[in-house]
Amino acid sequence: MQGLTVYAPFLGILSLVIAWLIYNYVKKQPNGTPLMQELEDAIHTGAMAFLKKEYSVLVVFIIVVFILLGWGIAWKTAIAFVTGAACSIAAGYSGMTAATRGNSRTAEAANKFGQAKALNVSYFSGSVMGLAVAGLGILGVGFWFWVYGGDPDTAQYINGFAMGASSIALFARVGGGVYTKAADVGADLVGKVEAGIPEDDPRNPGVIADNVGDNVGDIAGMGADIFESFVGSVIATIAIGATMSVTPEFLAQFPVLKGLDPVAIKLKYMAMPILVVMAGLLSSFVGVFSIKVFQKGNPAGALRYTTFVAAAIFIILTIIITRAIGMPTGAFWAVFSGLLCGIAIGLLAEYYTSGPPVKRIARQSETGPATVIISGLAVGMQSTYLPILGICVATYIGFQTAGIYGIGLSAVGMLATVGATMTVDAYGPIADNAGGISEMSGLGPETRKITDSLDALGNTTAAIGKGFAIGSAALTALALFVAYTQAANLGQVVIDNPMVVIGLFIGGMVPMTCAALTMTSVGKAAFSIVEEIRRQFREIPGLLEGKEGAKPDPATCVSIATTAALKEMVAPGLVAVLTPVAVGFLLGKETLGGMLLGATVMGAFLALFMANSGGAWDNAKKWIEEGNLGGKGSNNHKAAVVGDTVGDPFKDTSGPAMNILIKLMSVVSLVIAPILPTLGLFLR
Amino acid sequence: MQGLTVYAPFLGILSLVIAWLIYNYVKKQPNGTPLMQELEDAIHTGAMAFLKKEYSVLVVFIIVVFILLGWGIAWKTAIAFVTGAACSIAAGYSGMTAATRGNSRTAEAANKFGQAKALNVSYFSGSVMGLAVAGLGILGVGFWFWVYGGDPDTAQYINGFAMGASSIALFARVGGGVYTKAADVGADLVGKVEAGIPEDDPRNPGVIADNVGDNVGDIAGMGADIFESFVGSVIATIAIGATMSVTPEFLAQFPVLKGLDPVAIKLKYMAMPILVVMAGLLSSFVGVFSIKVFQKGNPAGALRYTTFVAAAIFIILTIIITRAIGMPTGAFWAVFSGLLCGIAIGLLAEYYTSGPPVKRIARQSETGPATVIISGLAVGMQSTYLPILGICVATYIGFQTAGIYGIGLSAVGMLATVGATMTVDAYGPIADNAGGISEMSGLGPETRKITDSLDALGNTTAAIGKGFAIGSAALTALALFVAYTQAANLGQVVIDNPMVVIGLFIGGMVPMTCAALTMTSVGKAAFSIVEEIRRQFREIPGLLEGKEGAKPDPATCVSIATTAALKEMVAPGLVAVLTPVAVGFLLGKETLGGMLLGATVMGAFLALFMANSGGAWDNAKKWIEEGNLGGKGSNNHKAAVVGDTVGDPFKDTSGPAMNILIKLMSVVSLVIAPILPTLGLFLR
Repeated sequence: MQGLTVYAPFLGILSLVIAWLIYNYVKKQPNGTPLMQELEDAIHTGAMAFLKKEYSVLVVFIIVVFILLGWGIAWKTAIAFVTGAACSIAAGYSGMTAATRGNSRTAEAANKFGQAKALNVSYFSGSVMGLAVAGLGILGVGFWFWVYGGDPDTAQYINGFAMGASSIALFARVGGGVYTKAADVGADLVGKVEAGIPEDDPRNPGVIADNVGDNVGDIAGMGADIFESFVGSVIATIAIGATMSVTPEFLAQFPVLKGLDPVAIKLKYMAMPILVVMAGLLSSFVGVFSIKVFQKGNPAGALRYTTFVAAAIFIILTIIITRAIGMPTGAFWAVFSGLLCGIAIGLLAEYYTSGPPVKRIARQSETGPATVIISGLAVGMQSTYLPILGICVATYIGFQTAGIYGIGLSAVGMLATVGATMTVDAYGPIADNAGGISEMSGLGPETRKITDSLDALGNTTAAIGKGFAIGSAALTALALFVAYTQAANLGQVVIDNPMVVIGLFIGGMVPMTCAALTMTSVGKAAFSIVEEIRRQFREIPGLLEGKEGAKPDPATCVSIATTAALKEMVAPGLVAVLTPVAVGFLLGKETLGGMLLGATVMGAFLALFMANSGGAWDNAKKWIEEGNLGGKGSNNHKAAVVGDTVGDPFKDTSGPAMNILIKLMSVVSLVIAPILPTLGLFLR
Repeated sequence: MQGLTVYAPFLGILSLVIAWLIYNYVKKQPNGTPLMQELEDAIHTGAMAFLKKEYSVLVVFIIVVFILLGWGIAWKTAIAFVTGAACSIAAGYSGMTAATRGNSRTAEAANKFGQAKALNVSYFSGSVMGLAVAGLGILGVGFWFWVYGGDPDTAQYINGFAMGASSIALFARVGGGVYTKAADVGADLVGKVEAGIPEDDPRNPGVIADNVGDNVGDIAGMGADIFESFVGSVIATIAIGATMSVTPEFLAQFPVLKGLDPVAIKLKYMAMPILVVMAGLLSSFVGVFSIKVFQKGNPAGALRYTTFVAAAIFIILTIIITRAIGMPTGAFWAVFSGLLCGIAIGLLAEYYTSGPPVKRIARQSETGPATVIISGLAVGMQSTYLPILGICVATYIGFQTAGIYGIGLSAVGMLATVGATMTVDAYGPIADNAGGISEMSGLGPETRKITDSLDALGNTTAAIGKGFAIGSAALTALALFVAYTQAANLGQVVIDNPMVVIGLFIGGMVPMTCAALTMTSVGKAAFSIVEEIRRQFREIPGLLEGKEGAKPDPATCVSIATTAALKEMVAPGLVAVLTPVAVGFLLGKETLGGMLLGATVMGAFLALFMANSGGAWDNAKKWIEEGNLGGKGSNNHKAAVVGDTVGDPFKDTSGPAMNILIKLMSVVSLVIAPILPTLGLFLR
């Protein structure tokens, strides 16, 4: 059964074919009135323009890194790097294409056929992203495993694929994150505050950019993030399996491995993660199509059940795999702990961003914006406790049941059913956009009610998705760290080595610095959009008054937002890529090990803190808007809006950037591990 | 010369005698009009009432821990613990007594004799705190060193003294921090916002509590913090010296140690930190009295020169000591690196809370409170970079020049001249209170101008002092961590041990949780004060209108603030004390080692982030109040006030609590190290 790994690339291609068929199904759905089609086209064109411009910047980066990797490490690694980057780009591109086609069709389905059909269209539009992420990941990793996975010594070349995926992810997350919030803040500031027109009003030239932002941030950015985790966890686990030391004590622990030679054991351990994600993809197929059974009931339940179906089948398949290839039972428990941890972290994120903490924050609006901010920050800090404990428990169970290899497997278990979970993540922004389109094109209140309820559900799935993204990022970063310590032969590094301590501190700096940079970026980019919208209101005659024929020029807004976001993504990107290289060569590989841990710990805490603070502020504002504590327009509402505005870059820009940061730094370290000196330049 | 350590207790007593003489000199100064004396008495009585109530709570805690320590570890450690707690209490008590006597006298000196004399009185009032902290520290550590320091094996009992100092410090910092901000926010909310009367108006019953808060937070709290660092750094270095392994490779590195037997070398290394702080105290004497030469010039320069004088003499004495007792030259460089690092971190804190970043934040007020908050948070995060780098450099130099022992020595070097630096720290709140008293008692504009300028200078010294407190806390915590790893025999812990990684994550949780708890505490305590002030305005006839004979009842406000603050200090205190114990026994001493590092890294970053964000917001508001960007009362000012209100618990409650937290957890671990299991209960 271990030999089944050769079918991984084919399974990946099958997933892509299914995604393509679903995309055609979505495209065949009616997309409404000419106005709706026009809006859809504007959003689609804007999003694609952003991606193309982003990718054209990234091509330069990819070529430079390709040459450096080939020259400094190995050309085999460099080629794998390029394919990883290409797969990440392809996943983002196909997911976005489907999402931007799905939004108007969801609105029209709500208009013509009601809720069940609207849920069906938006869910399947999202599944293109889910199946593309899982399919491209398994295709790429499976292919390189087929090429290099037959020998533990050549497996290191596969690491390049993960680095490619990570590099693209950072730029996509930061660029997309800056874009989405700059457009949001910019459009709101001039539209709602200065001009006094409602949100999503078609006169506002920034509205299209805002809708584009939802797609480039929450679809392409989130997709690249999860793609990176998915690929990273599998490759880290392969790397741990390939470099582990099969000692007699190790063998004594696991009777099932008796009589096997070390290489055979390593190959078995390397094959396991591939088989697990193959099982996860098969389970996801069933999960995705099970929406057809559930779509007629409560939408929240329907989405939840699809992931449960995938998880249940996945558990059964993993038990079978563990038995069939003769792995110790602990391997199953490691996978299982990761799966549970992922679910738990998602639910915790939902609690902190919609449960009692949100009402506590909202009530603080009675004493003004300052107390809203203080309580939101406190909730965010408190919300780190249980999810981090979950990561600790998953790590502990993984380690206790399958050694350090178990940590990698735990991360794989969390991510294996990504085809189903990512589908639900991508559903959210599609439903959000569908709501925007039905507002802008003036569809009836019945339709609005459906799209509003689907949109509200999307906010919940977004919170769960964000929690899941952080948890999987932390566990993947840990797995990559373990792989790094083995690849760098760090067996003898003691924690009271001061250079490791210095590494921890340096590691902590990077997330702090990147969080500060990205928060400032949003402000800068938003300002350039504000200027442009003001200019249009001033220079286009009759626009603000809504005269016939006076049309805004959204394309210029989109183009300005694109340029600004791409400019801002360069600095944090370079910090993330260059810091591990600098620390590794100047201070040595032990310090680098410490740095990775420091960055992972700080990054995970900051990501949870920022995502949950931001989500809680957002929902505190929404709770007041529902008519509580004075409702919309009251002083309480104004205070809550301040919290929400602070929360925007927190939850959609800086927080998510942390996920990528910690994985990217770990994977860069893993790739350069073979050529790092024990003592850096400064220690000789 | 090594034998000079026996004189340490006497030098400590000499310092206390000098402090007592200075106190009498201060008390002899005229304290102004009957109204001023009344205000002074109210503040003094309120502050003393807080301390007494706080200490009566702490006595219970001390007794419980005394019994547990004696029963579980050693009665010798338990006795040292009680003396450490007693010295910390004595330092806080004497410093506060002098400070609350010094404020009205500073105001009167400004009124009668002008700026030079006012500076003289406030500086000398502060020096009582500085000399008491240094004197009691050297007295206590010197005494126990004399008792147990003659044998490396008994030196561990001295650790109890540090634990006593740390325990009191946590409660003093948290209790004082909650008190000062709750009173400040409470008095302002009802007074300025609701009743529309100016700040420090005598009709407001909360004003005295606000002034008391400055003393219990910034004097007693800060004093306990620095006392803990001072004592902790010296004791950690003694412990590292006592437990280090004198290998042939070690001896080969240092020709100066040739021919000595291991015990003799250990005793030399143990004596070094005592001699260094003795030199620091002697230098501080000269530094403190040099104010007489400088007081006629620019006050900012005068304060700076006193610390430079102390530092310069200290450097010379340390060179002499290193030579005279035959230590490797590296020991001097380690001390020197700590001294420089302390100065650098202080100056960086000043830059971030008064330089261009402050104006950048102020300008964001043009777009409302949300952007003020975002930019302040970004500045705070960015401001962690260079100070942390400074700590890394000090650690690196200490380690490269004198091994892990050098890290301890570097912390000692930073703190040795504490008699002079703490004097400047304590000067700030005294000048602040003097300003408040001259406002409340209606002294003339000439006097106000002097007290205002001294107060403004106090804000700068406070920023420097906060930076210094954080830097010294981080370096002391690291030194204690190193001492812990040696005491727990952790030589074989590798960083890729997942239990260490879990420890790092758990360690990160504690500062996050305590920060969230303390931020929430301020809100709760402030609310109870608001209720009381409202009640008095409602129930005391004629109070709000300022009728003759209608007097507020500040004592009740003081008592309510005291009760609320003391209640709120319990939860974070217990978290800090119990977490290391629980982790140590349940997950083993390796996990505990990881936890300490995680807590130190996270705590240091959060402390810098919160202190500098808060300080920058405060000064951004002040900069607008000076007439920039529309000045007081403008919308910009209102936006900046929101930032300042968020910053209050950041910089004066939660941020400073981090300093103590990381030291306390380290010292608790050091004390329980001998009885910890290698594998915890959960790992068997």
